[in-house]
Amino acid sequence: MGYDWVSFTTDYGLADGFPAVCEGVIARVAPHARVLHVSHEVARQDIRRGAALLAQAVTYLPRAVHLAVVDPGVGTARRPVAVVSPEGVFIGPDNGLLIPAAEVLGGVTAAYEITEFYLQPVSATFHGRDIFAPAAANLANGVSPADLGPSIDLSELIRLPAPVTTVEPGRITTEVLGADTYGNVQLAATELGADPGAVVHAQVGDRSLEAVVGRTFADASAGSAVVLVDSAGQVAIAVNGGSAAAILRAQPGDRVVLLLAG
Amino acid sequence: MGYDWVSFTTDYGLADGFPAVCEGVIARVAPHARVLHVSHEVARQDIRRGAALLAQAVTYLPRAVHLAVVDPGVGTARRPVAVVSPEGVFIGPDNGLLIPAAEVLGGVTAAYEITEFYLQPVSATFHGRDIFAPAAANLANGVSPADLGPSIDLSELIRLPAPVTTVEPGRITTEVLGADTYGNVQLAATELGADPGAVVHAQVGDRSLEAVVGRTFADASAGSAVVLVDSAGQVAIAVNGGSAAAILRAQPGDRVVLLLAG
Amino acid sequence: MGYDWVSFTTDYGLADGFPAVCEGVIARVAPHARVLHVSHEVARQDIRRGAALLAQAVTYLPRAVHLAVVDPGVGTARRPVAVVSPEGVFIGPDNGLLIPAAEVLGGVTAAYEITEFYLQPVSATFHGRDIFAPAAANLANGVSPADLGPSIDLSELIRLPAPVTTVEPGRITTEVLGADTYGNVQLAATELGADPGAVVHAQVGDRSLEAVVGRTFADASAGSAVVLVDSAGQVAIAVNGGSAAAILRAQPGDRVVLLLAG
Repeated sequence: MGYDWVSFTTDYGLADGFPAVCEGVIARVAPHARVLHVSHEVARQDIRRGAALLAQAVTYLPRAVHLAVVDPGVGTARRPVAVVSPEGVFIGPDNGLLIPAAEVLGGVTAAYEITEFYLQPVSATFHGRDIFAPAAANLANGVSPADLGPSIDLSELIRLPAPVTTVEPGRITTEVLGADTYGNVQLAATELGADPGAVVHAQVGDRSLEAVVGRTFADASAGSAVVLVDSAGQVAIAVNGGSAAAILRAQPGDRVVLLLAG
Repeated sequence: MGYDWVSFTTDYGLADGFPAVCEGVIARVAPHARVLHVSHEVARQDIRRGAALLAQAVTYLPRAVHLAVVDPGVGTARRPVAVVSPEGVFIGPDNGLLIPAAEVLGGVTAAYEITEFYLQPVSATFHGRDIFAPAAANLANGVSPADLGPSIDLSELIRLPAPVTTVEPGRITTEVLGADTYGNVQLAATELGADPGAVVHAQVGDRSLEAVVGRTFADASAGSAVVLVDSAGQVAIAVNGGSAAAILRAQPGDRVVLLLAG
Repeated sequence: MGYDWVSFTTDYGLADGFPAVCEGVIARVAPHARVLHVSHEVARQDIRRGAALLAQAVTYLPRAVHLAVVDPGVGTARRPVAVVSPEGVFIGPDNGLLIPAAEVLGGVTAAYEITEFYLQPVSATFHGRDIFAPAAANLANGVSPADLGPSIDLSELIRLPAPVTTVEPGRITTEVLGADTYGNVQLAATELGADPGAVVHAQVGDRSLEAVVGRTFADASAGSAVVLVDSAGQVAIAVNGGSAAAILRAQPGDRVVLLLAG
């Protein structure tokens, strides 16, 4: 039956025309397909960040082939894969990038190594163009994922380590998932267990700040910090009119301790 | 009768997938609608800049629902609104962002508070996704603006203060509307009252430059400044191969004095 | 017969809505046309870089009108042109930008000065909106290039100087074409004449680095440099996890000497 939409997520940046070249490949193979560009500014080669971004976006996207490429191992032995979920198929490198989003859409039900439909000659450095985009376009045209190549045992798929969150009385230890354009720092924790107005001490390495528990950014006065559950359901630290990411110099994977005062 | 197009303007940035999530919401509700991305790099939370950008673009856009979100007050009591003009409907926060573009399309003829079609649960921090995109998509499907929620008295709509320009002999006092990627500084004034080749002294705070009155950027020699009426009909200061915005450190709303020599 | 697609390449940046205004003009004239945004972040006014980017993308794009604007001479006597190739038409300024891509699609078979279909009034500073986008949209609608304006003798078209590459035993002298988002420096040379594992000394002005000859980025250890033939068929210098462009401070047109050790 195919797909009307191909969603597209990379760390290619927008300056060099790499996403457009892939969109062109899709347009030549599957002219009916509409490409929905999720982001091409995932932090360079940051698989964790790309995985979190796609997982948080995917439920809001239309039924689609989800093409995602953050691929520091391009040209090495890492496999190109199609990961099937009940509500969409994911195309990209076998490095953990695709799994969290597939879990959001109901879990991984099958996976295939992509060995067919390559653009020839295949370059060693641009598999988005030569392997992944043609695979996505063929799925959009109604090709079955099983026709992309041999089945992969699901236990063999590379998975990112799950972020660890531990909750103790008055203390949450968790990890940074990422920071957005606004400088809001998103954490792996999903609950705060503190009332609005309470004060939280947030610590990342030797940096820290005090934040008030709130519901929206304006719950902190200008220049002050608020900690809230964000629109993706994650605990996040924000500075009203400023950047929590800059103050905390928070990177994906950094350990964060939240101490609840009182 | 609905709309074929949804134009979309925000300060979300392109890195985090926020515009794509909204586009996904629109695609799920109104698959026929085509999204025309105007800009997602409006200076962060700069309502004035967003309003000017949309007002200067809108006459060149196709007939559309115009979705715009620059929304420092998200999650507070500020209202989500639909603003109706003779040639298009605007969806966004009631903070002044939408009005200048609506004026360009013939003026505000009706306004409604958006209380229907929310995505549930509504987050406190991402109304673009949960309130504004669904409203825009429903309008694209042919829902009437009056079905989005209760009518608002037009006098109650929040409006930005109009920029002030005063013209005296040999002296124009005006305001910065914004600066573009090229470093060209756009002013609220629309006429210079000086002949090509005349010299203008432009002052912003304690910064200043001398510029020649011209028609296009190349009317100044490399590294020199030109003052011209730009493609939006506004007086603008440019440096050929350089950045007037960097030299003048000009911010939206800054007061500018232009002294005409002679 | 017209075109389904308009590809679009500029140095306008994405912040100010300039690409969207042009897309709006196209949508109003040719609602059926789909715009494929190649890049709007060509280095500002860098005609060489824009020309190389479009030439390397164009074979992967669908059959299209290719609209490209990197135009430091906007508003001067430089001509707006339509450049016809066997597989697509190019619209933009007569400054060399369009020719390399037209060569890739089979060579320039005709050229026309664009004198018709202008949006009135024509601004002196935004020909993308007022001259080029309307021309591209009319071609998409089936207007013949010959109806855009008078024919131009092909020998009169402005062409960029071809980059010079000389190959001597153990030594290649070539030029920088550009650097991408990853900091990979692309050269005009297309062959290395050295075996994988060989060491190359690359010199740009007074900067230099040692690179191993490889096939993909991971052929160098983290922080080390690799020299390879990239996905566009050009010799390129990359640093695994770093930026060769930053180390070499390489600009388009810079002369590069590659010395093959041994």
